[in-house]
Amino acid sequence: MDDALPRKNGREHSARHPPRNRRSHQGRRKKRATELQEAGKWPHLWRIVGQYSNISIIDVESNDELHALLSSLPLFPFMTIQVTPLAKHPSSIV
Amino acid sequence: MDDALPRKNGREHSARHPPRNRRSHQGRRKKRATELQEAGKWPHLWRIVGQYSNISIIDVESNDELHALLSSLPLFPFMTIQVTPLAKHPSSIV
Amino acid sequence: MDDALPRKNGREHSARHPPRNRRSHQGRRKKRATELQEAGKWPHLWRIVGQYSNISIIDVESNDELHALLSSLPLFPFMTIQVTPLAKHPSSIV
Amino acid sequence: MDDALPRKNGREHSARHPPRNRRSHQGRRKKRATELQEAGKWPHLWRIVGQYSNISIIDVESNDELHALLSSLPLFPFMTIQVTPLAKHPSSIV
Amino acid sequence: MDDALPRKNGREHSARHPPRNRRSHQGRRKKRATELQEAGKWPHLWRIVGQYSNISIIDVESNDELHALLSSLPLFPFMTIQVTPLAKHPSSIV
Amino acid sequence: MDDALPRKNGREHSARHPPRNRRSHQGRRKKRATELQEAGKWPHLWRIVGQYSNISIIDVESNDELHALLSSLPLFPFMTIQVTPLAKHPSSIV
Amino acid sequence: MDDALPRKNGREHSARHPPRNRRSHQGRRKKRATELQEAGKWPHLWRIVGQYSNISIIDVESNDELHALLSSLPLFPFMTIQVTPLAKHPSSIV
Amino acid sequence: MDDALPRKNGREHSARHPPRNRRSHQGRRKKRATELQEAGKWPHLWRIVGQYSNISIIDVESNDELHALLSSLPLFPFMTIQVTPLAKHPSSIV
Amino acid sequence: MDDALPRKNGREHSARHPPRNRRSHQGRRKKRATELQEAGKWPHLWRIVGQYSNISIIDVESNDELHALLSSLPLFPFMTIQVTPLAKHPSSIV
Amino acid sequence: MDDALPRKNGREHSARHPPRNRRSHQGRRKKRATELQEAGKWPHLWRIVGQYSNISIIDVESNDELHALLSSLPLFPFMTIQVTPLAKHPSSIV
Repeated sequence: MDDALPRKNGREHSARHPPRNRRSHQGRRKKRATELQEAGKWPHLWRIVGQYSNISIIDVESNDELHALLSSLPLFPFMTIQVTPLAKHPSSIV
Repeated sequence: MDDALPRKNGREHSARHPPRNRRSHQGRRKKRATELQEAGKWPHLWRIVGQYSNISIIDVESNDELHALLSSLPLFPFMTIQVTPLAKHPSSIV
Repeated sequence: MDDALPRKNGREHSARHPPRNRRSHQGRRKKRATELQEAGKWPHLWRIVGQYSNISIIDVESNDELHALLSSLPLFPFMTIQVTPLAKHPSSIV
Repeated sequence: MDDALPRKNGREHSARHPPRNRRSHQGRRKKRATELQEAGKWPHLWRIVGQYSNISIIDVESNDELHALLSSLPLFPFMTIQVTPLAKHPSSIV
Repeated sequence: MDDALPRKNGREHSARHPPRNRRSHQGRRKKRATELQEAGKWPHLWRIVGQYSNISIIDVESNDELHALLSSLPLFPFMTIQVTPLAKHPSSIV
Repeated sequence: MDDALPRKNGREHSARHPPRNRRSHQGRRKKRATELQEAGKWPHLWRIVGQYSNISIIDVESNDELHALLSSLPLFPFMTIQVTPLAKHPSSIV
Repeated sequence: MDDALPRKNGREHSARHPPRNRRSHQGRRKKRATELQEAGKWPHLWRIVGQYSNISIIDVESNDELHALLSSLPLFPFMTIQVTPLAKHPSSIV
Repeated sequence: MDDALPRKNGREHSARHPPRNRRSHQGRRKKRATELQEAGKWPHLWRIVGQYSNISIIDVESNDELHALLSSLPLFPFMTIQVTPLAKHPSSIV
Repeated sequence: MDDALPRKNGREHSARHPPRNRRSHQGRRKKRATELQEAGKWPHLWRIVGQYSNISIIDVESNDELHALLSSLPLFPFMTIQVTPLAKHPSSIV
Repeated sequence: MDDALPRKNGREHSARHPPRNRRSHQGRRKKRATELQEAGKWPHLWRIVGQYSNISIIDVESNDELHALLSSLPLFPFMTIQVTPLAKHPSSIV
């Protein structure tokens, strides 16, 4: 559903659990993020200033699809993710 | 979607904001809860022991439907609600 | 700056401080929100499911402009607002 | 008692304490979860979207039985569990 | 079950919500507490030093009985209660 | 004083700091707990369901004796302890 | 016991619950504080900078005496008090 | 001491406790803030974006002077203030 | 923008993640801090008493510049940073 | 200033970061604490019951002196310290 717009507030790249092949991980992460953005599933992605965290808007049909999407991210095992369900706001003109 | 299973953790009946016609409110609340349960939208509803709060499982198609359902509850303006999106668990046999 | 993208996490309409002329307030609130969206200052506005809160993306040139914008909202005195500064994410394709 | 319905909010599988033989652990975990579900002790089990955590409903006769059940889970030493006692809700039609 | 030993951490007597007939309430509260202690349902009751709160051990058969017991307290609507399920400890000699 | 009834809320056995000789530690821990219970210093000891924590009532003459008792526990360096001072409750019939 | 040295961290004078006869209360409060200091029960009393709160050292024989002392303060019903049990420190030269 | 540089994080103007004569209060507040800035005691004063709060640097000789200064603010009874003691930083070039 | 004045509340030098060549890191850190102060980007820098943390005022044109500045600090991967957007205060005489 | 009375709430001796030569550290720690107490800089030092933490009253002229004092403690890199500025209380008879 295009209303299924959770917020992903995750540390993508945790200093505590540095993956062995960091460069390889970063390449895979960027590739996967690009795919999901091009597929229209990940319409917004912002950096939180001063942190490794991001705030994202994900646009999926169901909670199951959302969990599948998030757990497909290469760095998922190292991320802390909090999902906030969003709906259309009555004052939004979009 | 039957995967859209949020948790409602709300104080249904807040001592701080006692509605004027309490008995009338309670009647309307129970009637609405019964309707939603009979419609299959509200499959589980438990009392948290020692509190006026409840934990509920709501089964809806989208976040928009969920917000519409929750804001249709007669005591919605007096409730504090926290939604936790749930998905199917790989070890669940259901 | 189009990078100045804070998040507004406010209770727009607090049950604790109900304004006298609620209908009038709601009309003014919606009118102001529409103006700011049409001006491109408020590109995104979502409802948090089950709450009176919203998550917004505001696009302004400076912190001073942001505070002026937020304090121009008709219900500003009744809102709790938390601003999270956002920047461009290196993996964003936008 | 079929009213003894606590909530298990545990990280089943913590990235910080990865067991040596992960595949073996996962197999044992799934087997134990299946046994308890088939025995009717664990009637509901959901995945929290975006996390390794779950929310479960356990149906036991006593607190002692509950602690025995939880500590029988193969990954119990790596889990953080919070139990919320639940009772029948007066508006539930079940 | 005599293992069902929750902890009641409640403000019995809240300065914010002073009942009209305070003396009458206090009498009813003490009477009810005495009944439950004499019935063996409320084996321990301590004052937290410097607060109106108490820590109690309640000994009941089920979560439903516990909720019924707590909601029978005359000041229940003014109390904040947190229940911690307790079980027998392996090192206890009792 | 028999009113000096603090609560010990400690992780006795932390998965993060596993002592080398676990079996030996457990034996010493149980032995010390038994001694203190038999001496009447540790009248109540309960397991918090689903956790390695316990809630205890300790009955000592002074804060110094309490600290000496707690720091005599074999696993004290691995425990997180919170003490809540308790007094006689006016409604207690004991 | 002179080791029974809890810390009182209370808002003595809450703007939310302004007593009717404020001047009278302040006089009674100061008188009671002076009595307890002269009796040696309240050896230290400091103001937390920028707040109506204080940090105090109380020197009593037991938890029961401590609760009696605190609840004898004229503004006790309006105070939020947190007690931290203190003991002699091995490095203290006093 | 010019090193005594605490941070004042206060809600200057609380919607919950609106003073009777708001305009008069605002005039007195601004006048007092100007005096203290001109005297060099209050070298920095910033608005936290989206809030009625401010972050201030105060430059005083002692904690007693700081408390006297803060409690001289006309809206002190309505403010929540948190003081963070600051010192010279070894990397500061000032 | 000279209004873009966030607060950096970071542990610059974390005992948990001690860099290998500590002396080398400290030299680079001080050099970078000096450059940014001399460039007018980092007008204030204070030590929080008793901690390795600092409170800083950064003066930049945009959120993107701020993130670039912060991530250019040699110890950025080891820091926890919280940014609070600041604006001009109406009572400031500067 | 004898008004500069912060509170040190630190874990002096953290189980997580055990120094190599523990006995040597303890000796140096005790020696330094004794020096500061004899110099009148550290008038009060208490053990928090059940914890490795202490509550201390430090009596210094300025924030800079306070930071210098605290960072001179041998175990400073392993401590978590929170400073609460204290002033004379109007009801104190000292």
